[in-house]
Amino acid sequence: MKFELTANDPKSSARAGVLQTDHGEIQTPIFMPVGTAGSVKAVHQRELENDVQAQIILGNTYHLYLRPGLGVLEQAGGLHKFNGWNHPILTDSGGYQVYSLAANRKIVEEGVTFKSHIDGSRHHFTPENVMDIQRSIGADIIMAFDECTPYPCEYGYAKKSMELTHQWLTRCVNRIQTTEPKYGYEQVLFPIVQGSVYKDLREQSAEYIASQNQPGNAIGGLSVGEPHEDMYAMTSLVCGILPKDKPRYLMGVGTPENILECIALGIDMFDCVMPTRNARNGMLFTTQGIINIRNEKWKDDLSPIDATLGGYVSTFHSKAYLRHLIINKEILGAQIASIHNLTFYLWLVKEARKQIVAGTFAEWKNKMVKTVSQRL
Amino acid sequence: MKFELTANDPKSSARAGVLQTDHGEIQTPIFMPVGTAGSVKAVHQRELENDVQAQIILGNTYHLYLRPGLGVLEQAGGLHKFNGWNHPILTDSGGYQVYSLAANRKIVEEGVTFKSHIDGSRHHFTPENVMDIQRSIGADIIMAFDECTPYPCEYGYAKKSMELTHQWLTRCVNRIQTTEPKYGYEQVLFPIVQGSVYKDLREQSAEYIASQNQPGNAIGGLSVGEPHEDMYAMTSLVCGILPKDKPRYLMGVGTPENILECIALGIDMFDCVMPTRNARNGMLFTTQGIINIRNEKWKDDLSPIDATLGGYVSTFHSKAYLRHLIINKEILGAQIASIHNLTFYLWLVKEARKQIVAGTFAEWKNKMVKTVSQRL
Repeated sequence: MKFELTANDPKSSARAGVLQTDHGEIQTPIFMPVGTAGSVKAVHQRELENDVQAQIILGNTYHLYLRPGLGVLEQAGGLHKFNGWNHPILTDSGGYQVYSLAANRKIVEEGVTFKSHIDGSRHHFTPENVMDIQRSIGADIIMAFDECTPYPCEYGYAKKSMELTHQWLTRCVNRIQTTEPKYGYEQVLFPIVQGSVYKDLREQSAEYIASQNQPGNAIGGLSVGEPHEDMYAMTSLVCGILPKDKPRYLMGVGTPENILECIALGIDMFDCVMPTRNARNGMLFTTQGIINIRNEKWKDDLSPIDATLGGYVSTFHSKAYLRHLIINKEILGAQIASIHNLTFYLWLVKEARKQIVAGTFAEWKNKMVKTVSQRL
Repeated sequence: MKFELTANDPKSSARAGVLQTDHGEIQTPIFMPVGTAGSVKAVHQRELENDVQAQIILGNTYHLYLRPGLGVLEQAGGLHKFNGWNHPILTDSGGYQVYSLAANRKIVEEGVTFKSHIDGSRHHFTPENVMDIQRSIGADIIMAFDECTPYPCEYGYAKKSMELTHQWLTRCVNRIQTTEPKYGYEQVLFPIVQGSVYKDLREQSAEYIASQNQPGNAIGGLSVGEPHEDMYAMTSLVCGILPKDKPRYLMGVGTPENILECIALGIDMFDCVMPTRNARNGMLFTTQGIINIRNEKWKDDLSPIDATLGGYVSTFHSKAYLRHLIINKEILGAQIASIHNLTFYLWLVKEARKQIVAGTFAEWKNKMVKTVSQRL
């Protein structure tokens, strides 16, 4: 995997780059739609490619390991072949889901034991087998197995948890270095910085993660309920320590505003369920601001969902039609709203990239943050 | 509206024709996907056009009248403009839904009073206002307001109900003849034959309906639970009476087998929720037979959903992937299965048409009925 920086914004830490993978090129900064169980919810792969113009999507280790399971994924030749997405895939390590979804979980130094949220069956995740599972899923980018602390989190617990994450990282790195890619193409590891909202822990963690010298680095444990100021402060701090020549991925972030602010702090990669989850509830992100399409005021509004954005669904369908579909719980409502929101998110990072390359990002960002955050 | 017969099968009553509407041509026999509330469930209009290759879809008067309501439909310039489907639309009169969904309904000679199943609000349908509503929705083909009897139905009630349907038809015809198309294109009325499973009533009704000399005719009150033999016997009887030079529409039918058998009896048009509703539950109609994709046996089957059928979703995705999506309740599962089933239904009637034109329909039909009915 090769990462090249194309441009640096003169007035912020924003950067534009190109990340080369064996499944194609990713222009950064980038937003990665979340395809938890092998499908970006309500969006067809063809639409992800042609309408949304996604460059990389996520899969989730916990979900895919439980269903469909590694047997069929290996038979298919990996997730790309199984779900027909022939561009890069990053897999989350499943740690977050084990902590948030599974029952009877028990974390010890060796790993985590948990019961499936689906059928109660007992499973065991270790840094080693989670690397193996992600190799079997066939991720281009494999995430380290970590513990993601909740917010708020006591200092003592945050420190202990960070130390465990660091120990586990050594085992992840060893496992990746002593195993081969499963399907012939390169599979790289991204370690994850933890440390909750504590400056000294974040510094310590960022330094440790940087020292592992992996092809890319991630920041975890943010966007879990802390104030935005804390998220930005930690991101800024960590970006100052992580190597400049490697991509930086801020996990689970966020609103359009969060993304623009964190691009300014030096983040290159983002993922979040917000554009798809909120779409299903009728919340639309547009170039003019945020719309709750369930609101009575859109009932007769026959103007396009977002004429400025472009793209088929956003210009072809009216707000009134989309409102009608969402109010009627028509599946097509979820489809159109999800495609629209993802198209907007991909548009936003593409515009940001253009501004970075043009050297005008900082001013543009300050204006754009106001526009995209306002409620229409 | 012009209907031309292209071919008659030598060994059955099957016919191939072309129906011209102001929104384009329909090749018959045809299957019409059901878009109850202005959306064919889980299928985008673009996919209906490009993948399914639908030529005409249905809308439902009861549902569209309640939501989004006539105000926004009229503002939009009719349903075609509102939902972006620029091909022919037929609207069901809403009678069936008033009887099956609405509460506190009361049928009198004047019309029907009922409470909305959504908010309990009180409404009144008459033959006259149902014609007006369908004009406002903007249907190319408007269905008469009738009473659809349940099965079983006592002879006395069936007779009375049929007589009411005939009285109402006179009022529907009058209303259509004394009002203008709402949006500049032609809107025609199809009367509906009733009479339950009683030969003499069906004969009487078919003769009355034929005497109204409308551009097309429909058969209602079948596929409501009666044995298939009754459905076929009534269809055959009625087709023998309805004029040959007008299209015949059998409402709410049915399985692939039902459709093939009724094409053989002289039916030109069909609609049914089965391909989309069953798709959402994981039941697939294929060129090889019927698949319950939830079945464990498809878990590792990486072969295409239906390689013979052709079409993007049916050849691109595997049975194992679609099973995974349906088991996981992923919306994409409903999307793929619905597109697949509708593509199959449209393929089936297109194949039937080819065989009619080639003069080989009867033999082909007998073989095909067995294939498409078997459980795989």
